[in-house]
Amino acid sequence: MIRFALFGAGFIGKVHGVNIATHPRTKLQYVYDINTAAATELANRFGAKVASSAEEIWAANDVDAVLIASSTNTHADLLSGAIKARKPTYCEKPIDMDMNRVKAVVQEAHNNPVPIMMGFSRRFDPNHRALRKAVQNGEVGVVEMITMCCRSSAPPPISYIKVSGGQFRDQTIHMFDLLCWIANDAPAEVYATGSSMMDPAIAEAGDVDTSMLILKFADGKLCYIDNSRHTGYGYDERIEVFGSQGLVESRRKPVREVSLYKGAKQIDEGLHPGWFERMEPTFMLALDAFVTALEGGEADYATLMDGLRAQTIAEAATESLHKNAPVKIEYWQPA
Amino acid sequence: MIRFALFGAGFIGKVHGVNIATHPRTKLQYVYDINTAAATELANRFGAKVASSAEEIWAANDVDAVLIASSTNTHADLLSGAIKARKPTYCEKPIDMDMNRVKAVVQEAHNNPVPIMMGFSRRFDPNHRALRKAVQNGEVGVVEMITMCCRSSAPPPISYIKVSGGQFRDQTIHMFDLLCWIANDAPAEVYATGSSMMDPAIAEAGDVDTSMLILKFADGKLCYIDNSRHTGYGYDERIEVFGSQGLVESRRKPVREVSLYKGAKQIDEGLHPGWFERMEPTFMLALDAFVTALEGGEADYATLMDGLRAQTIAEAATESLHKNAPVKIEYWQPA
Amino acid sequence: MIRFALFGAGFIGKVHGVNIATHPRTKLQYVYDINTAAATELANRFGAKVASSAEEIWAANDVDAVLIASSTNTHADLLSGAIKARKPTYCEKPIDMDMNRVKAVVQEAHNNPVPIMMGFSRRFDPNHRALRKAVQNGEVGVVEMITMCCRSSAPPPISYIKVSGGQFRDQTIHMFDLLCWIANDAPAEVYATGSSMMDPAIAEAGDVDTSMLILKFADGKLCYIDNSRHTGYGYDERIEVFGSQGLVESRRKPVREVSLYKGAKQIDEGLHPGWFERMEPTFMLALDAFVTALEGGEADYATLMDGLRAQTIAEAATESLHKNAPVKIEYWQPA
Amino acid sequence: MIRFALFGAGFIGKVHGVNIATHPRTKLQYVYDINTAAATELANRFGAKVASSAEEIWAANDVDAVLIASSTNTHADLLSGAIKARKPTYCEKPIDMDMNRVKAVVQEAHNNPVPIMMGFSRRFDPNHRALRKAVQNGEVGVVEMITMCCRSSAPPPISYIKVSGGQFRDQTIHMFDLLCWIANDAPAEVYATGSSMMDPAIAEAGDVDTSMLILKFADGKLCYIDNSRHTGYGYDERIEVFGSQGLVESRRKPVREVSLYKGAKQIDEGLHPGWFERMEPTFMLALDAFVTALEGGEADYATLMDGLRAQTIAEAATESLHKNAPVKIEYWQPA
Repeated sequence: MIRFALFGAGFIGKVHGVNIATHPRTKLQYVYDINTAAATELANRFGAKVASSAEEIWAANDVDAVLIASSTNTHADLLSGAIKARKPTYCEKPIDMDMNRVKAVVQEAHNNPVPIMMGFSRRFDPNHRALRKAVQNGEVGVVEMITMCCRSSAPPPISYIKVSGGQFRDQTIHMFDLLCWIANDAPAEVYATGSSMMDPAIAEAGDVDTSMLILKFADGKLCYIDNSRHTGYGYDERIEVFGSQGLVESRRKPVREVSLYKGAKQIDEGLHPGWFERMEPTFMLALDAFVTALEGGEADYATLMDGLRAQTIAEAATESLHKNAPVKIEYWQPA
Repeated sequence: MIRFALFGAGFIGKVHGVNIATHPRTKLQYVYDINTAAATELANRFGAKVASSAEEIWAANDVDAVLIASSTNTHADLLSGAIKARKPTYCEKPIDMDMNRVKAVVQEAHNNPVPIMMGFSRRFDPNHRALRKAVQNGEVGVVEMITMCCRSSAPPPISYIKVSGGQFRDQTIHMFDLLCWIANDAPAEVYATGSSMMDPAIAEAGDVDTSMLILKFADGKLCYIDNSRHTGYGYDERIEVFGSQGLVESRRKPVREVSLYKGAKQIDEGLHPGWFERMEPTFMLALDAFVTALEGGEADYATLMDGLRAQTIAEAATESLHKNAPVKIEYWQPA
Repeated sequence: MIRFALFGAGFIGKVHGVNIATHPRTKLQYVYDINTAAATELANRFGAKVASSAEEIWAANDVDAVLIASSTNTHADLLSGAIKARKPTYCEKPIDMDMNRVKAVVQEAHNNPVPIMMGFSRRFDPNHRALRKAVQNGEVGVVEMITMCCRSSAPPPISYIKVSGGQFRDQTIHMFDLLCWIANDAPAEVYATGSSMMDPAIAEAGDVDTSMLILKFADGKLCYIDNSRHTGYGYDERIEVFGSQGLVESRRKPVREVSLYKGAKQIDEGLHPGWFERMEPTFMLALDAFVTALEGGEADYATLMDGLRAQTIAEAATESLHKNAPVKIEYWQPA
Repeated sequence: MIRFALFGAGFIGKVHGVNIATHPRTKLQYVYDINTAAATELANRFGAKVASSAEEIWAANDVDAVLIASSTNTHADLLSGAIKARKPTYCEKPIDMDMNRVKAVVQEAHNNPVPIMMGFSRRFDPNHRALRKAVQNGEVGVVEMITMCCRSSAPPPISYIKVSGGQFRDQTIHMFDLLCWIANDAPAEVYATGSSMMDPAIAEAGDVDTSMLILKFADGKLCYIDNSRHTGYGYDERIEVFGSQGLVESRRKPVREVSLYKGAKQIDEGLHPGWFERMEPTFMLALDAFVTALEGGEADYATLMDGLRAQTIAEAATESLHKNAPVKIEYWQPA
């Protein structure tokens, strides 16, 4: 049994907490949250302890791994603490909003390696994963184009958007990670453009809600991503990989397989209402991948370097959006 | 160019007339109909002659083939005339409503063979045809079950139903032919049951509008067919063949490939409004098969014996419906 | 928390045991199995007690409900015990193979009512449930035809088939229950036929592996069911309800929504390898329905009378198969 | 009957010739081609005359309309001739490769208006047309994103590519027209990028074979188009319109609706082998629209101005590709 300390007992923290308690080979040992009531409620449900500080967790000898699901601005410090305490860590994305802090953490982890998995849980979606496997197996030949869409059913609150770093750093970052993972490659250049079409407050916050990007790789292959902060039809995330010999796609996933034929129409069940309903199973699958790797299996997950890479692309995309020009992407490496 | 005389200038006669005039290797030479105005209108449109009698056609030396699309009660006499005149014939189904007359015509054709194609045009539906090819190629292994549905969007007039011979002789007969064609076999026993659910007048006419049949073959394989005289969603005809190694199906065919995602639903284009819109392309394909056979190609169509076989099954099914018991099917052979 | 005693720690017993331990409002208190090692292993995993006899469970005052997942021949006695001990019971189907014992248990429960849910878990499949809701809401108008298929990917061992009571009592019984539940009605007559096509040993055991049934209701509506003990393509269970105004179907459910386009083909992920992979989520949903009812919610599940009804239909279907004739279905009522 | 003179008896000329001869309200009166043998063969098949020069056609009083399907470099002169001769004209795209000549023809037509339809036949694809109707009807609310793909199964010969003007002027131009037609609007800016991935000869010819474009409209809505000169899976052209309230898509169209389930896969029929098989029905529908307009109906087709607009976008896209920067699109108007 791998004993976890969990940082964060908010919405996504609870999801992780339940999964840790339910997974057959993990145990929820500690919960920490600045909201002590939330930490206590979650801990009590599964017989875990409430930690009174991060330090308590770093010092504990009954903690085998930590899961960081607290707010973004705590990630870098907690990662740093985990590195010092030699605790394998599953950390929600992003590493930090400030690229200098991101690089500092990456450098620290480079100097004192400990397993760190970034929570790009979409890699564990069975559809996306089967698509990647087909690509890796050469089913479509040489990859020439990758197209993706990432369309949320409803925007987050304006208060969140204001501190989110913008649509690319907040929303598209998942697709940047998927792109590199699927392509086994990182893009060399990005052009991004966008509009604020749904709510003037988003434009006032300096952000876009509707955007399109084209990414170009050194070998010539191209990638397209579009993003929307709202749909009228649920959560829509899809990937298509077009190669020299065929195409593979991770299609829309309906909520149910039920069709009504009536008059001149076929009416089917539509998509999941939001990203969470669609992606919920990926969290347990992601945890399982982390556990399997800690047990000695393959580390088939997004590393800290992968997290840095996705953020680097988001930075370049944001710059391109503001300049309305293609931008070369430079990847920093720890010394 | 194969020069055709056409019997019948009604709805389906016109369809055949236009096809004969449009097909690159056939010519519409004569049209005959007891409704002279209808014959004249169709003939004039394509520069064909109006025949004043069947005899004129049998005697004509500029007629290479005939197409019988006149009313059912004329089929047997016209087939007999065509056999005597040695004219290859494409004849709409059925041969005749009276099985004694059917047998007489079959015997006559057996004695004086001339190419006769029965108008079971569904054999030429590209979906059904691809399904059959998969079955013949062994894609599903040994055939164990065949399931079919044949659901019309709207019933014919009661006046027609009264003389139609009942749902099995009129509607299901197409499926009986498809079944034997796909299975390369003829069923040994049939159980049929039905209800009159949509219009009391259909029950008063002694017929059913909703029916189900199970047919059993000597080797144990089973077939199911259901029939309805109305749907609330267009014309629905499908076939599934289940074998020891897989399943192949001729699925529903949508009118268009357009989807609207809105709210919690995916709304697609539905089915064709009626059987004709769905099956229209099969008529030209059927004509082409007849022409190809006359030119020396393979006679890949329903023969007069196939027409007899389908009618024999319909007779047994009708008997089963009335007895509410399974009935053995005996196939008559010309001497 | 509802404290459960579980009878049976075999394959399906373990499924229930894990669900009881995981459900937020239930607790696995006792496990009993004649295989003590199996009971102990399951109990230890979740901190439950191992019961040494059924009597221990009937006498226990820390048991709020029981779940019977032991072998079929124990169901009647355990149900009887639960009725006497006033323990609400979730019982796997069937009640018993002997209809006299079935009736005796039903009579006993009638005299001393206690909540009993029969484990017809397919009622909790989200697709089937949405189909039923559409039917109940009148989306398809008056129901005229219901068609179902129930095709297992692989047959059980011959040893099991020999004591299974035959395909209808063992396999089709799930569809009989679904049929009545969807139609809110019970069929009046059944015709069944079948073949043994895949393994001579099945025929020698007096059973069929490939079968078709037509069921007729008093109001004229018809139902078709087909069954197979093997497919070459995974587990295939579907339902279609055809009404006066439209059609609703619970379609095939693919394992993943991934398509590969290559050459002239579109290659998609197929079906679940077996019934369990397809139906696994229904077990927790079924448990939740039972728990919700015990907490005072609606008893939206199959009752003991529903279990009797499904078995009654299976008896008539089996008689029809042997007679090769339609059989009227008589429903027994407790006095 | 509208009597047509046809310019061009090559591949696409023959398609138009057969359609004119088959359409119930048009007649093929003249055929002209510099290849007299080709013109003669086509004319003879339908009893048409062979013209010895364009002038003969301009002077003929038995010509009601002309159809220009000759090589691109003849279009401008023939359009000019038709304008002078007051002949309503159906002209294959593009107007001319030289934008100065294009503008000159547009100006001439502006000064002496005569009905001119540009052969953007994809507007008549029933799927695309139904999509547009849904958008016009407000089914998806305010349009925010339009995504399109246009992927040919195989590249044209290098000799053709060298004089084609590049992928955007040759291939994407159809999508530019569809985009404006669907959006009822013209884009203000375009960013294009591309690669030559399949054949070095294409790069040597200065062209790309794999490209992506983002087009931005004044109101903020965005459009994405990708193009490929080859696929491993047939012809793939799709359109998606994403609006504030939903999404409508013109999906892939399978060749047949036949599925094979075998093992862990569902194998369906794929796409049409090439653009012509997919789009063939649009040619007759386009002709019918032209005829209907000449008869006094609505001119529901691409006009000469629409042709200019599509070419203008192609010019800007080509400039963007070469500059690797977004380019503003300026639309020229006749004086």
